[in-house]
Amino acid sequence: MPKDSIRLNFGYRIRELRVASGMTQEAFADHCGFARTYMSRIETGGANPSLEAVKTLADGLGIELGELFKGI
Amino acid sequence: MPKDSIRLNFGYRIRELRVASGMTQEAFADHCGFARTYMSRIETGGANPSLEAVKTLADGLGIELGELFKGI
Repeated sequence: MPKDSIRLNFGYRIRELRVASGMTQEAFADHCGFARTYMSRIETGGANPSLEAVKTLADGLGIELGELFKGI
Repeated sequence: MPKDSIRLNFGYRIRELRVASGMTQEAFADHCGFARTYMSRIETGGANPSLEAVKTLADGLGIELGELFKGI
């Protein structure tokens, strides 16, 4: 698996869960306390978020980390 | 949950899985291509590894990310 595939797969998963939650990308960024440009980079695989940032995303979606990574 | 709990919980999980695999911390660090001091910091919650580093750890343990984060 190329190095950036995990970033792409993770971003796709975040977007999928965020859309399912009914939040816009901007609202979700605000909810997580992240810059909107950073959230955009996360969803498009441009960012390599830290463990703590990943936890913030899971908390923002109201799900467990194991659920967030399911199928990735 | 305090900010560093995810780091501590993650480090504990990595250590648990690494010990179960039979690898020493040094051997696992070499296997992952990480500095031994960095692996020590990961296992003790001192590091905040990136998504790509987390994927490298899962691959080094031969497990899926969903399994790695199970129960964290």
